[in-house]
Amino acid sequence: MSFRRRLVAEGLGTALLLAIVVGSGIMGERLADGNVAIALLANTLATGAGLVVLILVFGPVSGGHFNPAVTLADAWEGGLPRAEVPGYVAAQVIGAFLGVAAAHLMFQEPLFSASMHIRTGPSQWWSEFVATFGLLSVIWGCLRSRPETVAFAVGLYISAAYWFTASTSFANPAVTLARAASDTFAGIRPVDAPPFIIAQLLGAFAATALFRWLTPSVSEHADEVVVRHDGAP
Amino acid sequence: MSFRRRLVAEGLGTALLLAIVVGSGIMGERLADGNVAIALLANTLATGAGLVVLILVFGPVSGGHFNPAVTLADAWEGGLPRAEVPGYVAAQVIGAFLGVAAAHLMFQEPLFSASMHIRTGPSQWWSEFVATFGLLSVIWGCLRSRPETVAFAVGLYISAAYWFTASTSFANPAVTLARAASDTFAGIRPVDAPPFIIAQLLGAFAATALFRWLTPSVSEHADEVVVRHDGAP
Amino acid sequence: MSFRRRLVAEGLGTALLLAIVVGSGIMGERLADGNVAIALLANTLATGAGLVVLILVFGPVSGGHFNPAVTLADAWEGGLPRAEVPGYVAAQVIGAFLGVAAAHLMFQEPLFSASMHIRTGPSQWWSEFVATFGLLSVIWGCLRSRPETVAFAVGLYISAAYWFTASTSFANPAVTLARAASDTFAGIRPVDAPPFIIAQLLGAFAATALFRWLTPSVSEHADEVVVRHDGAP
Amino acid sequence: MSFRRRLVAEGLGTALLLAIVVGSGIMGERLADGNVAIALLANTLATGAGLVVLILVFGPVSGGHFNPAVTLADAWEGGLPRAEVPGYVAAQVIGAFLGVAAAHLMFQEPLFSASMHIRTGPSQWWSEFVATFGLLSVIWGCLRSRPETVAFAVGLYISAAYWFTASTSFANPAVTLARAASDTFAGIRPVDAPPFIIAQLLGAFAATALFRWLTPSVSEHADEVVVRHDGAP
Repeated sequence: MSFRRRLVAEGLGTALLLAIVVGSGIMGERLADGNVAIALLANTLATGAGLVVLILVFGPVSGGHFNPAVTLADAWEGGLPRAEVPGYVAAQVIGAFLGVAAAHLMFQEPLFSASMHIRTGPSQWWSEFVATFGLLSVIWGCLRSRPETVAFAVGLYISAAYWFTASTSFANPAVTLARAASDTFAGIRPVDAPPFIIAQLLGAFAATALFRWLTPSVSEHADEVVVRHDGAP
Repeated sequence: MSFRRRLVAEGLGTALLLAIVVGSGIMGERLADGNVAIALLANTLATGAGLVVLILVFGPVSGGHFNPAVTLADAWEGGLPRAEVPGYVAAQVIGAFLGVAAAHLMFQEPLFSASMHIRTGPSQWWSEFVATFGLLSVIWGCLRSRPETVAFAVGLYISAAYWFTASTSFANPAVTLARAASDTFAGIRPVDAPPFIIAQLLGAFAATALFRWLTPSVSEHADEVVVRHDGAP
Repeated sequence: MSFRRRLVAEGLGTALLLAIVVGSGIMGERLADGNVAIALLANTLATGAGLVVLILVFGPVSGGHFNPAVTLADAWEGGLPRAEVPGYVAAQVIGAFLGVAAAHLMFQEPLFSASMHIRTGPSQWWSEFVATFGLLSVIWGCLRSRPETVAFAVGLYISAAYWFTASTSFANPAVTLARAASDTFAGIRPVDAPPFIIAQLLGAFAATALFRWLTPSVSEHADEVVVRHDGAP
Repeated sequence: MSFRRRLVAEGLGTALLLAIVVGSGIMGERLADGNVAIALLANTLATGAGLVVLILVFGPVSGGHFNPAVTLADAWEGGLPRAEVPGYVAAQVIGAFLGVAAAHLMFQEPLFSASMHIRTGPSQWWSEFVATFGLLSVIWGCLRSRPETVAFAVGLYISAAYWFTASTSFANPAVTLARAASDTFAGIRPVDAPPFIIAQLLGAFAATALFRWLTPSVSEHADEVVVRHDGAP
């Protein structure tokens, strides 16, 4: 796969992911008659199902990261060449903002609007640490012995994490930045984004270090396994 | 498989799909006590689960298209012989109307009734473009490397698309026509159907062109892969 | 597998199926605060998930029928020896009643109680015909080319059928009889049971005849395929 | 896999399981506006999805028990060496309490707090017997012929069992103890825990004895199958 094709896959996949997260949040809130749990159930269903599909579709092309935390961890493990990291991250961030705009167009919202949804404090940051620690644990754990399950495992994990973390599990720096530009159900105040991203990167780092010890065979062969198989081998 | 058997499979599968979409819409609305989100959750669950099953069951016989946009894209890629396209589309449309009638009979509604559900405007058309672009991306993307996942991926994708598009993702010209004949939860005004269908065909065309570039190996072998394996190989 | 072991598997599996259907109906209704759609969503989730698991667990032992309509269709296709049909059906019916009693014990209801839930009229009977026609189509269709998907397909199909049929899809004579002995959410008046059962058997017969023509290879090898592989090969 | 690594896997997996169960219970109750069925639907979704993922991730390392009842049954069948049972159980119990604390931190609750949620009486105990009998039946039944489905089957089974048992299916002594330390949606009074645990162990014993007779091939090879393959082979 040429680098250009992989960047398009990362960008388009992240755009669709954000369209799903933001769009289903708007739809859920509009229809749920004020019951936030029902809105979040709809948001969860759409995000979990969508993630499985996006990793199945784009995983064979680019690895299906859609997430700078995953890209960095992959490069740290020797999977993605470090020189390709900036391109991947740029494609993810640009794609994420385009996805937000696409969703806003569908629901007749302004293309971008700074969110006023407050998400701050140590409990929220701890939630993001746990959420991203769990996400990377799932990726490294499944890649080790059953790589064909990664897409399903990631979708199921995020479905659970929407509910068991107090922050509804952003677990993704590109997603966090783009959701700051959406004053809707899924939004986050721009000022609250940086600590979220720091907590996410720490969680990703901790899980990667732990699984390097827990299942060493992954680390040794990561360069072969991840590039070719991450997502949907 | 003889052409006659494949036409019966396309017709029966599309009929069951419409019975599921329309029937579960009626049931959801009747039971949901006015909460539209709960009705749509039920509608989503039934449609997503039903699609997976129908593609598993009829895919090995006819490809499990149930959708003129898929049939046209498949023929364009060199899968289905062009001479068979009219037969497929006719079977899908006839099956779709029979499925609507079957659902109406179960729920004591008139066999057919023109819908009065307004679904119009650029946001709705953009939603249908995105919805069908996504559907064809899922089909071409999964067929490339993991064809055995297509049935699951399509069901999961439509479950997400019911929520992340403002139109609840018709994404299918035969379904659109038949839902115009159902003045129930799932209906669409007959006058609103043509722009929906145009947007769907444009979305299908865009995704097919993109994946021809993004994953060229699919296109080259599409004639072999699609006819035998689309859906449930 | 000895006949005795297979009878225990059919009986225990059907008992657990009824415990799931009746128990989750009671729980759903008690917690849903009068919103029937929410109660039925819970009932659907439990039944669909439970069916997949029960077919995976008991399918390799007995075929995982849990349903006289499936047993009769299987014998008609030359799968199960006809002499074993009465034993299978008896085990299913006895198991079904035991399962209802087990659920009633969990929820502090009387062991058995005649249901007063009215379910009658041509729309309901047509619904049961469609529901069982669909169920047998799913079984024969999946067995033909991807038998390892039968358990998942049946669970997903019934999840959809709870919503797209007006009768909430009993689709099973043993289940129908036992639910007549439960005056709870899932019940059916004893007097309404016989027409349900007739409609179910007609639907099962129609689907089996259709798939004998549509996918003849299944019929020819049914004796080998079904006995060993139905459910979870 | 070294014993130390397996203990870390059991402890971390059980911690994440409890964080999921308790965290999603708190989130569900806070958002559901007093509708307990909606809160339990969210709790079910998170727990079922989370269990599948945790068994996929940690199963290849430690077997993915997270449950003293499973560990004891496995040792009884000759799977886990008996000398390792105390270590496994200790890791599970310690992990469970850490997981409760992690969830409480995310949701700004005190680290631990004795639950006041009454769960007692013969119906509840019978529910726990049935719930754990079913869980062990699922594990032994799936291991026999399709071990790669165990993770999915366990997640689906618990999703059903949350609804069809009157106790919402604890089915796990370590989970029961730790939930006694959480005065939230998922809690149980400390005084109610011991009879729950006794019922769970009896249910696990009954299912293991039954499947030893029903599918003898499992028992004979259990020492090979379970240690290497339980969860995610």
